Amino acid sequence: MVCTKNTENNNLPRRQVLNIPAVVYGKTSAQLKEQYGVNELVLMNCNENPLGSSPLAIKAIQEEALNINRYPESGSSDLRQKLANHYGIEREMVLCSNGGDNIITTLMQTFLDEGDELVVGHPSFFVYGHTSGIMGAKLIKVPLKDYTYDLAAILQAVTPKTKMVIICNPNNPTSTILRQKEVDEFIAVLPQDCLVVFDEAYREFVEDKNYPDSLKYVKEDKNVLIIRTFSKLYGLAGLRIGYCLAPQKVMTYMARVVETFPVNRLAQVAAMAALDDKNFVTKVKAANALGKAYLIDELAKLGMKTAPAYANFIFTDTGMDSIKLVKDLEKRGILIRPAVSWGFPTCVRISIGTQAENEKLVKAIQEIKDEI
Amino acid sequence: MVCTKNTENNNLPRRQVLNIPAVVYGKTSAQLKEQYGVNELVLMNCNENPLGSSPLAIKAIQEEALNINRYPESGSSDLRQKLANHYGIEREMVLCSNGGDNIITTLMQTFLDEGDELVVGHPSFFVYGHTSGIMGAKLIKVPLKDYTYDLAAILQAVTPKTKMVIICNPNNPTSTILRQKEVDEFIAVLPQDCLVVFDEAYREFVEDKNYPDSLKYVKEDKNVLIIRTFSKLYGLAGLRIGYCLAPQKVMTYMARVVETFPVNRLAQVAAMAALDDKNFVTKVKAANALGKAYLIDELAKLGMKTAPAYANFIFTDTGMDSIKLVKDLEKRGILIRPAVSWGFPTCVRISIGTQAENEKLVKAIQEIKDEI
Repeated sequence: MVCTKNTENNNLPRRQVLNIPAVVYGKTSAQLKEQYGVNELVLMNCNENPLGSSPLAIKAIQEEALNINRYPESGSSDLRQKLANHYGIEREMVLCSNGGDNIITTLMQTFLDEGDELVVGHPSFFVYGHTSGIMGAKLIKVPLKDYTYDLAAILQAVTPKTKMVIICNPNNPTSTILRQKEVDEFIAVLPQDCLVVFDEAYREFVEDKNYPDSLKYVKEDKNVLIIRTFSKLYGLAGLRIGYCLAPQKVMTYMARVVETFPVNRLAQVAAMAALDDKNFVTKVKAANALGKAYLIDELAKLGMKTAPAYANFIFTDTGMDSIKLVKDLEKRGILIRPAVSWGFPTCVRISIGTQAENEKLVKAIQEIKDEI
Repeated sequence: MVCTKNTENNNLPRRQVLNIPAVVYGKTSAQLKEQYGVNELVLMNCNENPLGSSPLAIKAIQEEALNINRYPESGSSDLRQKLANHYGIEREMVLCSNGGDNIITTLMQTFLDEGDELVVGHPSFFVYGHTSGIMGAKLIKVPLKDYTYDLAAILQAVTPKTKMVIICNPNNPTSTILRQKEVDEFIAVLPQDCLVVFDEAYREFVEDKNYPDSLKYVKEDKNVLIIRTFSKLYGLAGLRIGYCLAPQKVMTYMARVVETFPVNRLAQVAAMAALDDKNFVTKVKAANALGKAYLIDELAKLGMKTAPAYANFIFTDTGMDSIKLVKDLEKRGILIRPAVSWGFPTCVRISIGTQAENEKLVKAIQEIKDEI
């Protein structure tokens, strides 16, 4: 949808909305296949789960499909209780919503006003800027250091107007992490009335033993909120189910703002089934670790350097014009993400695929390099 | 979730959020069944479709369940195109989201600021107050007249601060409608910079030939937006899929605010399949008309008067304490909605059920009356 700037009706929307860029939707999968004359696309551009979803979740969906004439449980009670048990906290410290995106929308609606400042790393997840912009908050973007959130610089960016800091860990798009000690130190010195949000959409892929236990801060009743999702490890991106964890003194406000029926029925049953599917989780983690090591190695042989990668994607400096590389791959039906708009013109973000997909990508990049 | 008022952390949320009441989730179906020792509940309290969902939609869900590891199409392109064709408008005049509720959230985020006034009838759909309150707008509630939106009184309530008027037609909870001529006259005299929103969640059930063609105003490029849903006639309440129709000069702003992936994959395919299922639609409309006539007649025999009813529910003055009646029915596993909180202590809102459910309700009310 290309929404052209309309100058006649500018007094209709809120002033802040005029600052939000017009929406341009990309091509659909069907359109891309037709354009490039390929039967299948290799989707390594959205950090999805290449192994599909938990079979238990799919079965739960297919059964529950018979009940979709009925509204979902408004409070996602059973799922929230299951998550609460999983984490050893109270159900009132868990909130589920329509994907991590909607958790973020709710977060901004609950806490950010015009004049408030939100501090984030840059580049990081683009949704922070969109949703905080709608509320009229000022987004303070602190450049990454070695592809990683720079906590010292973030601390320096904090002012009396700073209402919230978001730490995307692992960071999207760079796949790097912060560790326990540095986060502990950050939390200790940050003003206590500043809300710290940990976006941990990719946490389950991290194998580093010093990855922070952010739940500790929740249990300590700090002004902290953790965002997690079923989109990645559990392979339920298409269903839209994310959640957050926070002390009651934070969650009480989120719960007032969230909609009545944000989580569809199928997402509720699928998420519960997926939580129980240990086999699927084990398989996905193992395949991701192998695929990630394979890709980093093979790209290194092609002279491409990858940032330390802890999630289900890698951030690689190709040494080439990334827009051209991405287009050349697209013609072969392989989709990855260029990092130009994030300020890294030679870098790309690549989601780990199946082994066959990873091999196909490496072969294609080799061919493209050879053509130059 | 009972969120107790927290006085220590009041500087954390936006000021407006402090005015939103704490959330109290009702009991789950499982809890109610256990409490009353019943195997099945008769759900006549949420205006759902008692005949289930379109079999074509269920089949589409079960097939698409295999692809839910992939994100949905961001712009719901195919569904929006199908709806656009259905209505004879451009795709850019259609926006889909996570149920009508999320359309309303997006609407308020796009257009309402602190100090703006929103005029609605009262009682009407409670979500208008919740979502506009979050944005800090002032909700002006204009009492219904004969259970119906009172357009003359609404016009009188319009001030220079009025940014939006919502007309719920048929109105929830009273099931009454406004007609073409009176709406035409209203639109003609309302200030043109005021956005008029028609919430037509129940429109497909209306058989009155003078029900307004609100799409006409959209085609005339007025500041108008129409909300519709797949939750009711199409029986997809549990999937969360609603949409709105508006001229591009209005939609351009909504499109900037709506999330990237508001509509899950299964909702997109189910909605498209449901639109094609003429058999299911015909069956539902016929059953609803018969059931509605039956209930109105039988309740009349019990001395209860029902407001003119055009949707898939009725609003009935029972002449009794509605809270007590609703509780007595609940003990028998039958759920309906008391109208006390809407200012009608002897009225109830009853969703039309299957014929067996309607008969069960009438029999139960008769028993309860006999006991008095």
